[in-house]
Amino acid sequence: MKVILDCDPGHDDAVAIILAASGISPLEIVGITTVAGNVQVEKNTLNALKVCDVIGLDHVPVVQGATRPLVKEAEIAEEIHGETGLDGPQLPNEPSRQAIDQHAVDFIIEKLLQADEPITLVPTGPLTNIALALVKEPKIKQNIQEIVLMGGGTFGNWTPAAEFNIYVDAEAAKIVFESGIPVRMFGLDVTHQVLATTETVDALRKMGNPVSGFVSDLLTFFIQAYQDHFDFPGGPIHDACTIIHLIDPDIFTFEHVHVAIETNGEHTYGMTVVDRLGVTGQEPNTYFATTLDHEKFWSVFKEAMVSYGERSE
Amino acid sequence: MKVILDCDPGHDDAVAIILAASGISPLEIVGITTVAGNVQVEKNTLNALKVCDVIGLDHVPVVQGATRPLVKEAEIAEEIHGETGLDGPQLPNEPSRQAIDQHAVDFIIEKLLQADEPITLVPTGPLTNIALALVKEPKIKQNIQEIVLMGGGTFGNWTPAAEFNIYVDAEAAKIVFESGIPVRMFGLDVTHQVLATTETVDALRKMGNPVSGFVSDLLTFFIQAYQDHFDFPGGPIHDACTIIHLIDPDIFTFEHVHVAIETNGEHTYGMTVVDRLGVTGQEPNTYFATTLDHEKFWSVFKEAMVSYGERSE
Amino acid sequence: MKVILDCDPGHDDAVAIILAASGISPLEIVGITTVAGNVQVEKNTLNALKVCDVIGLDHVPVVQGATRPLVKEAEIAEEIHGETGLDGPQLPNEPSRQAIDQHAVDFIIEKLLQADEPITLVPTGPLTNIALALVKEPKIKQNIQEIVLMGGGTFGNWTPAAEFNIYVDAEAAKIVFESGIPVRMFGLDVTHQVLATTETVDALRKMGNPVSGFVSDLLTFFIQAYQDHFDFPGGPIHDACTIIHLIDPDIFTFEHVHVAIETNGEHTYGMTVVDRLGVTGQEPNTYFATTLDHEKFWSVFKEAMVSYGERSE
Amino acid sequence: MKVILDCDPGHDDAVAIILAASGISPLEIVGITTVAGNVQVEKNTLNALKVCDVIGLDHVPVVQGATRPLVKEAEIAEEIHGETGLDGPQLPNEPSRQAIDQHAVDFIIEKLLQADEPITLVPTGPLTNIALALVKEPKIKQNIQEIVLMGGGTFGNWTPAAEFNIYVDAEAAKIVFESGIPVRMFGLDVTHQVLATTETVDALRKMGNPVSGFVSDLLTFFIQAYQDHFDFPGGPIHDACTIIHLIDPDIFTFEHVHVAIETNGEHTYGMTVVDRLGVTGQEPNTYFATTLDHEKFWSVFKEAMVSYGERSE
Repeated sequence: MKVILDCDPGHDDAVAIILAASGISPLEIVGITTVAGNVQVEKNTLNALKVCDVIGLDHVPVVQGATRPLVKEAEIAEEIHGETGLDGPQLPNEPSRQAIDQHAVDFIIEKLLQADEPITLVPTGPLTNIALALVKEPKIKQNIQEIVLMGGGTFGNWTPAAEFNIYVDAEAAKIVFESGIPVRMFGLDVTHQVLATTETVDALRKMGNPVSGFVSDLLTFFIQAYQDHFDFPGGPIHDACTIIHLIDPDIFTFEHVHVAIETNGEHTYGMTVVDRLGVTGQEPNTYFATTLDHEKFWSVFKEAMVSYGERSE
Repeated sequence: MKVILDCDPGHDDAVAIILAASGISPLEIVGITTVAGNVQVEKNTLNALKVCDVIGLDHVPVVQGATRPLVKEAEIAEEIHGETGLDGPQLPNEPSRQAIDQHAVDFIIEKLLQADEPITLVPTGPLTNIALALVKEPKIKQNIQEIVLMGGGTFGNWTPAAEFNIYVDAEAAKIVFESGIPVRMFGLDVTHQVLATTETVDALRKMGNPVSGFVSDLLTFFIQAYQDHFDFPGGPIHDACTIIHLIDPDIFTFEHVHVAIETNGEHTYGMTVVDRLGVTGQEPNTYFATTLDHEKFWSVFKEAMVSYGERSE
Repeated sequence: MKVILDCDPGHDDAVAIILAASGISPLEIVGITTVAGNVQVEKNTLNALKVCDVIGLDHVPVVQGATRPLVKEAEIAEEIHGETGLDGPQLPNEPSRQAIDQHAVDFIIEKLLQADEPITLVPTGPLTNIALALVKEPKIKQNIQEIVLMGGGTFGNWTPAAEFNIYVDAEAAKIVFESGIPVRMFGLDVTHQVLATTETVDALRKMGNPVSGFVSDLLTFFIQAYQDHFDFPGGPIHDACTIIHLIDPDIFTFEHVHVAIETNGEHTYGMTVVDRLGVTGQEPNTYFATTLDHEKFWSVFKEAMVSYGERSE
Repeated sequence: MKVILDCDPGHDDAVAIILAASGISPLEIVGITTVAGNVQVEKNTLNALKVCDVIGLDHVPVVQGATRPLVKEAEIAEEIHGETGLDGPQLPNEPSRQAIDQHAVDFIIEKLLQADEPITLVPTGPLTNIALALVKEPKIKQNIQEIVLMGGGTFGNWTPAAEFNIYVDAEAAKIVFESGIPVRMFGLDVTHQVLATTETVDALRKMGNPVSGFVSDLLTFFIQAYQDHFDFPGGPIHDACTIIHLIDPDIFTFEHVHVAIETNGEHTYGMTVVDRLGVTGQEPNTYFATTLDHEKFWSVFKEAMVSYGERSE
């Protein structure tokens, strides 16, 4: 299954990339595109390249995208991801290669128009790149298998009503959810159920491969950030849900519902308005993830990490 | 403890009145004021008077209030409460008395200004009367003990984001929540946990007093309406939560949070935006009910109903 | 013709009262009601009483109304009207009488319900009192001849889109314009054409009666305020337009158009959206004043002032 | 002076192109880009190509752009421009050449990045292309001399508050006006002063060159449309104002003001909120055209048309 990972790494984006490239993944990564989100796009691009270095993913193009949201001012989440956007692990200053010389929007359009089979888009940051691609070249719609995204929820983390990814570019989200393309949405309702804890970190450390070591450093920082800012007992590895689902589609349960994006409210800008009770009479446009099989989730997670090598003692 | 019940009966409003007037209630009902809501205010007033007849509550003034929301068009919920607003039980066409000749807004202001001790307001319909009273005579604030209301939630039942009472008059709700008066809010998050079922109806029937019979008729209709419209396994007796709490304050648990009212959104008009994660930095203005002790709840409910008399066989 | 003057004096409100009570006026002033607007309602009430003292209008009840707008925070215009709301003339600290002990909203409702002929309402401040009366007692509609108001315009003075009176309480304005009662609207489009200048002041001084002297003091301050804040060559005596029209209905020209009130916009809250080209297809609800016969206007103005007495030399 | 004409021809867009390519024009047309607006973008592109054919402008690339607005649904103005978007003149079914194979957004970005001197952008349709270019490649800002646009006004023609071009894509307009690039705005306030009449048509007919004949056919249709829909005594050749100004900068007068774009209002979506009284305290971002020297305007217009040849009798 061909995917384009559109992301703003970001600790949990990094975990998603690592899972997608793992030995147990059925995904063919067509490209990794970056977008302004957790931190500035240039930093997110550097981080994507460095993550590729860590896991030896050197054949997949990394492509930089939008430097800002469509309509409103940029907003970043340094308090969660640190100044680099990927604070925690020791990383070289420079990656071994550079992003290719194309705009992510054009990369996405080109790959979709050329595709002999539909491609799944997996956005785990603000939806700016995807929205721009849809506005610039609406013909790509027919070659998109599904948009499997992390974002939104029936409650928020950036405002009481809005989750960060959607809040940063609600107009882009509106374009995507109204596009007619099937959307599979991993929002806070489900991602807050997936908490990495110090036990997760310890288990990763014990595996003893460099990738699991890197992930354990990522999670150590991330767990602390969520404890400090949200008083959470662990770090919700939001973006990882998209890839775990693509690896094993039987882990999460979904409701098929209509989701609208609020771009006007005084207190609700960026809210994903999920019609779970079916009161609007609108046709469902989204598979909304509600619960998961925790055991299976962490088992797949572990398997993926182990696929990067196991301690030989 | 002195209370004014401001309501739009309405099946669950009726249950609330009956609980408040029951033998185990510590509440002194200063008056029952009505408001346009579930159905037109004239019908709600008639229903309040008839409920008083059923339970012999003839010393408490019933006072009619606002015929429409502050700013937007009226909206009614006949599909839930039937054409009379209280469909189900057999009731005489006319009550034994009439509402007193005063506007509910003036009644509320007068009673509060005259009060020698603070009065608790218990609105279980749209907040139009309370808001009008606050705008017309801001001095009443100091004599309001607390506003214990049914309304709102982190999700809706009239739209995906808005609960009926708040949706009908979101501007009124905004006035109330921004007033500085302590608000105790029983929203859908908690009221959807309190489902009357056919077992409840059977238990009421067995008690064998006329009031429990009346309530069992009410609930039979209400349970069916919720099954038909929301596919619920029971009827959430929303408004009853306010009175059960006032009878026994140890049943519900609360979070002290900030709640804002959305009056602008395209998809979120009438939403109560509850800041459960504390991301806005706003001072809490609301005790938001989250969970309850079910056993205690139904035990108090039963005790109250039994207080109206028990089958003598 | 019976009128209720609902106002927030205010220099131009004061002029409107003086014109309405002048010897050439066909108006029977049923009452003067006050509202929070240019300054706090208590100050506006004091000012109304003092203006009555200046012109000997002691038989007309002055009644205090709303202390705040319906939904949003109060806003005042001290930079235009000074700290007292009527800076400029020398006035005694205390008026000779007090406002009657009734709320303006109830006064308006009572007078309308008792009226044997329809009454014209003349609001020259925010529309809070009128809106509250309409919500509290919708039956008054049938006894309102017309609402002749100063407010709004196709452009604003408080924001680029909104005029002060409407901006202060746009929700109230929405209630009034959507009420179905005929509205005659003197907005900035026409009131900015009616500039009092130093020539006006000189002419008033020459008349030599105490009222014209008082008005000349008012206008001297007001002209200066408009020069300082808006760089205007004179002071637009906005509110006076309503009364001049009621004295002589042939002075102003009107378009019969639909006017909607914006209560949602980010930059346009409080705008009166005037459909002059008829593009909405909505039924006209407003006579919108566009131009005037300047000569006739100032002639009526002068005649009214002269009616208070002329220098005897 | 280098310009890119970004348009949706459209009768008045066609006139603008013809003026820009006339013998008296100092403008070097780098390209003509098209956008969805008056009609669908494919039709607008065809029309641009056909207009080029009529005037022999075969060296200037025509480039097709956005097929839809950024965020909201497309809207067209067939009732004004007819089904083809350029109804009136007899035109061949097919133009002599095709649009170049590039997206207008990329054309605009490429030409600006390559420019050795700043280029003036002249949008006379919705601002979708310009906004997309600014979001996709913010670096282009430094090479834009000015954005000289037709759009907006202190009143509207599509709604009472909004002019068509801005209404169709208010989010794009917001991006442009907030970009920091100097904007020169020809809104309805000034373009409604520039009415082509049957006298204009007669004068064009008399010139006797094929271009003036074509324009006279265009205007005949356009004048009729404005008479039918707006009861106007002539056809306002809106878009022509931009080019007439670039040919002779002394014709129009401007105010330097702040303009904000309303994207939220219930009745005011797409309004250009022009702060003519300076009440917002915001820095001016726009030269807002208010009046013109009519004689000079029509003299330049005539000269431009004559430059295409004069009847030889």
